[in-house]
Amino acid sequence: MLEDKNPQRTPLSELGEFRLIEHLTEQITLSHKSTIKGVGDDAAVLNFKSSRIVVTTDLLVEGIHFDLSYMPLKHLGYKAVMVNLSDCYAMNAMATQITVSIAVSNRFPVEALEELYGGINTACKLYNIDLVGGDTTSSTSGLIISVTAIGEVKEGNEVFRSGANPNDLLVVSGDIGGAYMGLQVLEREKEVFKVNPNSQPDLSMYSYIIERQLKPEARKDIVELLEKLEVIPTSMIDISDGLSSEIIHICKQSKVGVDLYENKIPLDPQVISTCEEFDIDSTTVALNGGEDYELLMTISQKDYPKIKGNPNLTVIGYMTEKETGMHLITRAEQRIPIIAKGWNSLSD
Amino acid sequence: MLEDKNPQRTPLSELGEFRLIEHLTEQITLSHKSTIKGVGDDAAVLNFKSSRIVVTTDLLVEGIHFDLSYMPLKHLGYKAVMVNLSDCYAMNAMATQITVSIAVSNRFPVEALEELYGGINTACKLYNIDLVGGDTTSSTSGLIISVTAIGEVKEGNEVFRSGANPNDLLVVSGDIGGAYMGLQVLEREKEVFKVNPNSQPDLSMYSYIIERQLKPEARKDIVELLEKLEVIPTSMIDISDGLSSEIIHICKQSKVGVDLYENKIPLDPQVISTCEEFDIDSTTVALNGGEDYELLMTISQKDYPKIKGNPNLTVIGYMTEKETGMHLITRAEQRIPIIAKGWNSLSD
Repeated sequence: MLEDKNPQRTPLSELGEFRLIEHLTEQITLSHKSTIKGVGDDAAVLNFKSSRIVVTTDLLVEGIHFDLSYMPLKHLGYKAVMVNLSDCYAMNAMATQITVSIAVSNRFPVEALEELYGGINTACKLYNIDLVGGDTTSSTSGLIISVTAIGEVKEGNEVFRSGANPNDLLVVSGDIGGAYMGLQVLEREKEVFKVNPNSQPDLSMYSYIIERQLKPEARKDIVELLEKLEVIPTSMIDISDGLSSEIIHICKQSKVGVDLYENKIPLDPQVISTCEEFDIDSTTVALNGGEDYELLMTISQKDYPKIKGNPNLTVIGYMTEKETGMHLITRAEQRIPIIAKGWNSLSD
Repeated sequence: MLEDKNPQRTPLSELGEFRLIEHLTEQITLSHKSTIKGVGDDAAVLNFKSSRIVVTTDLLVEGIHFDLSYMPLKHLGYKAVMVNLSDCYAMNAMATQITVSIAVSNRFPVEALEELYGGINTACKLYNIDLVGGDTTSSTSGLIISVTAIGEVKEGNEVFRSGANPNDLLVVSGDIGGAYMGLQVLEREKEVFKVNPNSQPDLSMYSYIIERQLKPEARKDIVELLEKLEVIPTSMIDISDGLSSEIIHICKQSKVGVDLYENKIPLDPQVISTCEEFDIDSTTVALNGGEDYELLMTISQKDYPKIKGNPNLTVIGYMTEKETGMHLITRAEQRIPIIAKGWNSLSD
């Protein structure tokens, strides 16, 4: 894929480290008043006089978090930013700045890094983020991307994982399970490609779920919506590891239990049909799939009228006393304990 | 070295990602009022109402930036923090928080990561830093450490690379070239060890330069000293890539030239004697060696009386008009153009 798109291949050594950073960052424009100084000094300088700031960081490793055989570099750059913005939004904060560090082996030409930065810059533009620093270095193998995001939130509006109370409603944005099923389709096509490199698969019937995997969007709009609706969730987390794992985080940190209703979990029709095709239970996918980057929150019952009927938010359960435990209420009205089966990057 | 020190080897998979992070961060204590929320949520929350904040990040890659055959993991953790604190101090800011992300292959047992975090925690304690977030994941090969540091500085006290004026004095803290010569000694001993694994080298005569390489200290004390002396440098940078490369950064960004005096460059006696032993020119080492993490600054001539005679600060030259160019004035009073030969991680 790289060769076709980039007939020109400039070796990294031709530019050198300093000029590479200059080259990759020369198109950066700054738009936040809080950014006093961006790329080009020992550190960026920021000014957040009237806000609290949030800081979050994520590391993406080739072969663990992404597979370049089906992940275009532009999308990878975009996704690396989204993963971090999502963490800021999960604090009910607006992301404002990022730093990006990259380690690459010499098998990547300069043009490949331009693609990667193209995705990063697109994400920054769409989400109004200033890229203010970073580090570019070589690696002995593969590509590693480390992004740190900084955001701001008005004092008192920050939302932790630990604030849920019994009787609060459990609410999720958008729909879930799509990113995981998109990955299943891409991995199947990769196997087909290995057997027959000339196959031209028609993936249009999977377009939504493949986009959920390759080009996820962080839910900035939900933070803006909550502000407009004048709802401050009692707790919030982003769904990176699957619904069950995130619910357990909220329950443990808030010292509450939960009743989650299987029939309320929002699934896209493409997720349902692809689960049928792959013979996988769609509830299992929603609970354990991960990478959807939707927001999971709890809200006070008094706020229910404000969110009722909003197509972006779905009530999927309610919080209980801790002693009641964490349960999925199935369509057959069985109570099944919720256990963490989230994607565990260290298990194999 | 690992086997001797750590007879117990717990596979990473035994703990899993969440419990590993919990395990490694359970000893963290927070000491800054600006840290509202540290590890354990989607993001850390910080409060910097009266200051500007600085942000910097660095990525350290096994086989590129460090060699575990002579770099103990505890020292590596310590150094990874120092590299970033040094960038904060180079802004004339006090570092206050860090995030640490680590990617490791399964060849590292939990005990190895404990060693690494031991060094990180020691650095945090000694430099009064709150560890507020991070990410731990697996890698397909080797160890990667990404650290982001956050610091604060009173508005108006921040120092950029771009503020130097003609006639300003060029000043360096401590002495330089030690870290590079320490590396030469360590690499020689590694080769000796390959031939004769039973050799027990006496490295005591190299103790200072080896410590400069394995356990560098960021110059927090210099930022404190400058405040006490009531000196705000006109420009500042930390010496990570060698004196010549950092001088060029200041000259280019400040649009000035420089006269650097070879006979003023501060060198430790161990650097001089080891350079003689290795038959390397000590000025070349000082100019191109790197990794000393001293601070290079320019100060106004009117501030000279305040720093005069201070054993921590050495005047090594002065800034000139841009047109004059950048020159080293040798002991033989020759004018040699300064060119960047700094360590370039992408050149091979």
